[in-house]
Amino acid sequence: MGATRVEIIGIGAGDPGHVTVAAVAALNRADVFFFLDKPDAARELSDLRQAILDAHVPGGGYRLARAQDPERVRTESGYGEAVADWRKRRADVCEQLMVEHLAPGETGAFLVWGDPSLYDSIISVVDDIRARGRLDFDVVVHAGISSVSALAARCGTTLNQVGGAVQVTTGRRLEQAWPDGVDDVVVMLDSRDAYLHFAEDPDVHVHWGAYVGTADEIIVSGPLTEVAEQIRETREKARQDKGWIMDTYLLRRRR
Amino acid sequence: MGATRVEIIGIGAGDPGHVTVAAVAALNRADVFFFLDKPDAARELSDLRQAILDAHVPGGGYRLARAQDPERVRTESGYGEAVADWRKRRADVCEQLMVEHLAPGETGAFLVWGDPSLYDSIISVVDDIRARGRLDFDVVVHAGISSVSALAARCGTTLNQVGGAVQVTTGRRLEQAWPDGVDDVVVMLDSRDAYLHFAEDPDVHVHWGAYVGTADEIIVSGPLTEVAEQIRETREKARQDKGWIMDTYLLRRRR
Repeated sequence: MGATRVEIIGIGAGDPGHVTVAAVAALNRADVFFFLDKPDAARELSDLRQAILDAHVPGGGYRLARAQDPERVRTESGYGEAVADWRKRRADVCEQLMVEHLAPGETGAFLVWGDPSLYDSIISVVDDIRARGRLDFDVVVHAGISSVSALAARCGTTLNQVGGAVQVTTGRRLEQAWPDGVDDVVVMLDSRDAYLHFAEDPDVHVHWGAYVGTADEIIVSGPLTEVAEQIRETREKARQDKGWIMDTYLLRRRR
Repeated sequence: MGATRVEIIGIGAGDPGHVTVAAVAALNRADVFFFLDKPDAARELSDLRQAILDAHVPGGGYRLARAQDPERVRTESGYGEAVADWRKRRADVCEQLMVEHLAPGETGAFLVWGDPSLYDSIISVVDDIRARGRLDFDVVVHAGISSVSALAARCGTTLNQVGGAVQVTTGRRLEQAWPDGVDDVVVMLDSRDAYLHFAEDPDVHVHWGAYVGTADEIIVSGPLTEVAEQIRETREKARQDKGWIMDTYLLRRRR
């Protein structure tokens, strides 16, 4: 019997074509997939994961093990603590899924939107479970196309200017200030329209994309002074219509 | 007759498994591939591209159009000018390849290591050629797994810490200073061992990888104080043995 294995598989930004050949092989190797279902309307995300499986493992033959993803308590203060608490509860849920559904010698898999290395907690959660020592398993991670790469490709742009740096950051951080020392800023996890803080700057250009790679893809590019309000309205409407949004943007300051 | 098309295809960091399903389809659609051969020993890079084609277009049936990649004049001063000059000469070479080898209605393709959006000039070069107006064609870009994502997956690590930012930068910039406002720094294009500037800092951890995803892959991870000299020796030897190196690293400062 081989080692029990957990594979963390980056499945790209939504387009089944974004999945790598290695990830397709991993999808076909897994005995069981662990699905953490978001509460509320983001159930559609689980359906999208199922669509990825249908596209690449048409023969089926795998099991699904599902649980509710714990809700994160959102508070302005104690952000770090709230995330640590959420991560612990996610580890509890995932460990329980593995105890109940992953037999020794089997391979279980987590599907991750985009690339597991960028703003996703599954790698840490699985590390935590392993550190607890209750279960013994190997871990393999498969890189995926991040929404950042997908957005850049769709817009036919690079992320960096010649010889320059690019910072990948959150809406929470951008809201405080434009990062020092960079002209190119990629923003993920922005629930607060942080780009609006720079909407008067005539030197900033934006490439914004939501649901990139899916049938619902929306792209808005242009000088931020001209399109900031359009982006704000578009994302508010999209969030209302679908109940959730997955978006990313690149702000580029002219040198 | 359809539109003449140029596809810029990210082929990942070296492992044929890193190619996406969409990129495989694009490889099979191309009539002609444009190969820019590096002078000197980096000829091996062209062989690696051929290996990607052999893996994913086993039936052949495409044409190859090759030219010498212009050499970049490396000077300490005038970095921007040197790059602009190099880019213009690359555009000259690529435009000539297209004039000679791409018939109207055909699809030509450039293969790019990693992800075309990160520290690669082909998107800009093709934009420049289009702006000259001599040729009329559509452009499609396919995102690829960058060496950054491949390195993170191989090391089972994330690029960012919880809620934090990550900066992607060059050795030239890191040499000047640790970037402000970030604890995680990804370094590409470092020909000067810039990490050595932080080799005395007990709070810095490094994940370094060369030729990630290929048979020659080398990974070194650990506290920078302990492994900096090992990385320096390893990369010097690798560069001598192969004549070229493709490496990336993540520096993580403990909070």
